[in-house]
Amino acid sequence: MLSFESDYILGAHEKVLEALLKTNSEMLSGYGNDIHTENAKNLIKKACNAPDSDVFFLTGGTQANKTIIATMLKPFEGVIAPQTGHISLHEVGAIEYTGHKVIELAAENGKLSAGKVEEYLKTFYGDENNSMMVVPGMIYVSHPTEYGTLYTKSELSALRAVADKYGMKLFLDGARLGYGLMSRESDLDLSDIADLCHVFYIGGTKVGALCGEAVVFAKGYTPERFHSLTKQHGAMLAKGRLLGVQFEALFTDNLYFEISKNAIDRAEELKQLFKSRGYEFLIDSPTNQQFIILTDEQMKKIGEKCRFCFWERVDENRCAVRFATSFATTKEDILALSEII
Amino acid sequence: MLSFESDYILGAHEKVLEALLKTNSEMLSGYGNDIHTENAKNLIKKACNAPDSDVFFLTGGTQANKTIIATMLKPFEGVIAPQTGHISLHEVGAIEYTGHKVIELAAENGKLSAGKVEEYLKTFYGDENNSMMVVPGMIYVSHPTEYGTLYTKSELSALRAVADKYGMKLFLDGARLGYGLMSRESDLDLSDIADLCHVFYIGGTKVGALCGEAVVFAKGYTPERFHSLTKQHGAMLAKGRLLGVQFEALFTDNLYFEISKNAIDRAEELKQLFKSRGYEFLIDSPTNQQFIILTDEQMKKIGEKCRFCFWERVDENRCAVRFATSFATTKEDILALSEII
Amino acid sequence: MLSFESDYILGAHEKVLEALLKTNSEMLSGYGNDIHTENAKNLIKKACNAPDSDVFFLTGGTQANKTIIATMLKPFEGVIAPQTGHISLHEVGAIEYTGHKVIELAAENGKLSAGKVEEYLKTFYGDENNSMMVVPGMIYVSHPTEYGTLYTKSELSALRAVADKYGMKLFLDGARLGYGLMSRESDLDLSDIADLCHVFYIGGTKVGALCGEAVVFAKGYTPERFHSLTKQHGAMLAKGRLLGVQFEALFTDNLYFEISKNAIDRAEELKQLFKSRGYEFLIDSPTNQQFIILTDEQMKKIGEKCRFCFWERVDENRCAVRFATSFATTKEDILALSEII
Amino acid sequence: MLSFESDYILGAHEKVLEALLKTNSEMLSGYGNDIHTENAKNLIKKACNAPDSDVFFLTGGTQANKTIIATMLKPFEGVIAPQTGHISLHEVGAIEYTGHKVIELAAENGKLSAGKVEEYLKTFYGDENNSMMVVPGMIYVSHPTEYGTLYTKSELSALRAVADKYGMKLFLDGARLGYGLMSRESDLDLSDIADLCHVFYIGGTKVGALCGEAVVFAKGYTPERFHSLTKQHGAMLAKGRLLGVQFEALFTDNLYFEISKNAIDRAEELKQLFKSRGYEFLIDSPTNQQFIILTDEQMKKIGEKCRFCFWERVDENRCAVRFATSFATTKEDILALSEII
Repeated sequence: MLSFESDYILGAHEKVLEALLKTNSEMLSGYGNDIHTENAKNLIKKACNAPDSDVFFLTGGTQANKTIIATMLKPFEGVIAPQTGHISLHEVGAIEYTGHKVIELAAENGKLSAGKVEEYLKTFYGDENNSMMVVPGMIYVSHPTEYGTLYTKSELSALRAVADKYGMKLFLDGARLGYGLMSRESDLDLSDIADLCHVFYIGGTKVGALCGEAVVFAKGYTPERFHSLTKQHGAMLAKGRLLGVQFEALFTDNLYFEISKNAIDRAEELKQLFKSRGYEFLIDSPTNQQFIILTDEQMKKIGEKCRFCFWERVDENRCAVRFATSFATTKEDILALSEII
Repeated sequence: MLSFESDYILGAHEKVLEALLKTNSEMLSGYGNDIHTENAKNLIKKACNAPDSDVFFLTGGTQANKTIIATMLKPFEGVIAPQTGHISLHEVGAIEYTGHKVIELAAENGKLSAGKVEEYLKTFYGDENNSMMVVPGMIYVSHPTEYGTLYTKSELSALRAVADKYGMKLFLDGARLGYGLMSRESDLDLSDIADLCHVFYIGGTKVGALCGEAVVFAKGYTPERFHSLTKQHGAMLAKGRLLGVQFEALFTDNLYFEISKNAIDRAEELKQLFKSRGYEFLIDSPTNQQFIILTDEQMKKIGEKCRFCFWERVDENRCAVRFATSFATTKEDILALSEII
Repeated sequence: MLSFESDYILGAHEKVLEALLKTNSEMLSGYGNDIHTENAKNLIKKACNAPDSDVFFLTGGTQANKTIIATMLKPFEGVIAPQTGHISLHEVGAIEYTGHKVIELAAENGKLSAGKVEEYLKTFYGDENNSMMVVPGMIYVSHPTEYGTLYTKSELSALRAVADKYGMKLFLDGARLGYGLMSRESDLDLSDIADLCHVFYIGGTKVGALCGEAVVFAKGYTPERFHSLTKQHGAMLAKGRLLGVQFEALFTDNLYFEISKNAIDRAEELKQLFKSRGYEFLIDSPTNQQFIILTDEQMKKIGEKCRFCFWERVDENRCAVRFATSFATTKEDILALSEII
Repeated sequence: MLSFESDYILGAHEKVLEALLKTNSEMLSGYGNDIHTENAKNLIKKACNAPDSDVFFLTGGTQANKTIIATMLKPFEGVIAPQTGHISLHEVGAIEYTGHKVIELAAENGKLSAGKVEEYLKTFYGDENNSMMVVPGMIYVSHPTEYGTLYTKSELSALRAVADKYGMKLFLDGARLGYGLMSRESDLDLSDIADLCHVFYIGGTKVGALCGEAVVFAKGYTPERFHSLTKQHGAMLAKGRLLGVQFEALFTDNLYFEISKNAIDRAEELKQLFKSRGYEFLIDSPTNQQFIILTDEQMKKIGEKCRFCFWERVDENRCAVRFATSFATTKEDILALSEII
């Protein structure tokens, strides 16, 4: 059945699979001490225009979030995040499980504004009892957000400025980073991200890999013995090559960007399609996740021929649902959808 | 200098001190295995009209909160609390340090309503992705709240009903419980509290003891090996008698209630005094903490002769400050205050 | 270069790769809610002759160890393990990071004996202060052990009996389980393991998969909301299919056992080869890891043509090194080795 | 009944109680921000001859151990301790609960030798896989030990040298420090301890106080925001004065040392008494804890008239028991004991 359920309904991009196939019988050392992992790291540093950064590969988003946050925060620090952020809502308290508070601030369209953050910090530092409070040590944003929205260069710069002013780190969860970078509305490229964030990751799982996120620490911000700490967090693969080989493929010949662009192009077509048919949107998303409002009747009818993801109830008769395109969505898929809706 | 800074500016009530003096040379076993601790437990069970409950003594409020919550929650559970709750704001993330999320809901006058809690629970259980969310396993309320306000019997019953309906526990932080019970506006007595809560504690530190909180678990809700777990949490005293003897004194001849009543009587006088002089209040508190709004000039002038606690800035020229009475506040103190303001 | 460095120097077995290739373009739901994962679970239950067990897939051994132990132990419990056990030595304290003590007992040839365990338990339960001690809640063994050795059916049964007697769980780390099951000296089959352990896992990473361990909980021992808890531990893959598809392949047509047998056959040849040339062994291992003692000169010379793993220094002039065969080792590899040593 | 059960069977020394009484009605700020706490800190720094050290007061030994260790170690570090150490055995895994491994080394008479520590460190740093191991970050010793024994100045210096050589911290648990300092066999004074340790604490609970341990950090080793972190650990008292006033009394006019000396003098008399009657000792202790070997019959008979603490079974017919003197033991108590044994 046709499916826009998520951007992880398929396996890997064929070139990624091919790379796994091609390197399968090479004898390589474990734990990421292999030539492909090394090469992938260098390709990523180059793509980020950040030769002095440090790159590590982890298997998934929640794993990356908890390992990064737990190893970068001091014991008395918490992480500021939007109330709709992935770490706030959908990780079964993985951050708190590492002992740190997620300080949730109101979000707008999934985004956190520098203004809101500074407003909170002023309250915090204005409180005479702040020695009894969790110290904000990091700002967490996802880009694109869980609602498909994007930060502008100016917004991200403002967040970094606030972070610097108050001695905090800026961390960008890029589980869907490719789709953000290739969005027609994006004014941020990969080197901007690398320049503005103390740490971020480039999502592979949702952008053409079987699994894998590439974590990039800005120069001087890699936690001490981070590689060992990934073991402590259960996040180290014996066959580290699995991640190295995939990212090597993704960052060869611009593959990561091209397949991200495909998802964006298809998403734009899908968006226009729904618009042209008069559907309403929950939010105006410029990336690969589109949030459409359907009546219960429409949900049922469309749902018989095409999968999508339930998002939230809007009112008694209507729900918002998510249609996601991915690296693998084809023009034919959009055409097929146009027959259904 | 005259001081209404807090309800812990003095040592212990004289009868509590006397009891420590009187029992000082008795040879007693450690870790709470002594006759006074035993006796204190029985006196408290009796005062609670809860013969089948279990009583334990801990030294302070944050210690009690974290030990209780960490040992009663399952690993995937979090605790619902008002945004202004002590565990939300003023414990340096002690709850999160034990691995559990504090799910903060909007509070009104420091209180959480059953309606607000159920509204949240409906969203939670209505979310198809709830397997990725922290499961609400407990409701935390403080009584009196951090703003001096009180739950009515009906409000607390409603919270218990919601807790039961969704398989949650109701936990009442009674760091200032005596002042709540003796408030003229309270319709809850100690046996009501014991009846409605799965667990609560009777604050000693702020009500006449040098230190100590009496934790009461309703029948069947004591965590397995709780005594051992207090050791793991660094919360067990070798000389457990220090807590047992104090609570024995507090629950002999109604002392706990009488000294709480003294604080309430003085608080009412203080409240009337400020009212009669035309001062405004931040909130209408029926307990021993009164929140008065002062101009910056008044703050300075009064502050020269009398201590109080800064609470929060109200506007450019005015702040809210807290005046707290306690078991030891005298009519003379109020009189002296009337000369100053 | 020829390499016996470890059993994870290669990618996946070709049939595992083929399965990934073949299913790559199927549209499947995430988080393990797909038909291949379902099928793999059923195949494993069948192979274990344990239709009522619960099966989950995780990505690696340390991840499995920490997630299983943390979710099965009560807060006051620790896990008994041999001093040479993987969780004792080589996981950067991953178990302690979850808050639980590893109670290390002396091992013999990497193995823990029921006698040693019971001896410890008698001390524990004989101590009047045991309320201040960590309660032993689980026995951890690896099979094969880190030294390639195996438990006999009688030894494992004795450990289970002790576990039952003292209310503990028996957990078997089967990161290399296939190589144990196919050892010529093994008198345990998979259904015995499933019968004797409360929980164990079937290692994929070191036995033909790119990554993945299949965790099997005996009926009634699955921790509450275990699936959610894997998310909290950062151990859930969005593309759960990656694990499901691989284990489906491994448990189709006996593949897992056949490729394990290959490793064992080659290991026996390798063992005979070294024996016939007069080399000494650190330990007599009946599985795919062989521990040979080499002089420093031999190490250097052999090391120029063939990779192996340094294990430990034996005396001033000699070291023990590990030669590991795997699912992919060929008769040609052994032949090539015979030319070198 | 006569009791030598422990050194915490009584309340406080009378001068400590008097101080609490005398200061009881002073109005003082909370959380240790009071003049007595300030004064106590200065008296202790002076007694330690360490004007640049930082002093904090906590309520008990396990609380001090876990708070100190958790805040001084990095996330990948563990603490080396003797197998018989308090943190190894009798704290319900409080250290592991904070996420850190206790690396247990063999002890002799309760003591850890620099040689044994270095031997371990050589193995650790000699292991090529040490990136998968917990890094030893601290050495924990108790002085006197759990067996009443003492480190010499030369032994403690050697431990410090090893600590420095390997970048570790030296932490001395001084729950019974007074009894160590006043032992006739001690060649360490308080300033030596302060000089040799990165952190240590001066026990009050077992040396004349109702509760309380004074933690002393050497210059430059106080963990960032330690005061806040004590709140996170549930270790901060609202009425911090309770600890400040007691330690002020203990460190005025040499009280701490005098009452410690009393315990030592009585212990020597007790030791001679048992020796003169032909009893055997489990260990030769120069401090206030004496370990006598009794037949089961003797245990029963003496136990009818005098309390002591069961320690461990020595053989089928005999046990070791502990007789502890304290700040309050009198010559009359020893005389009474001589009638009994």
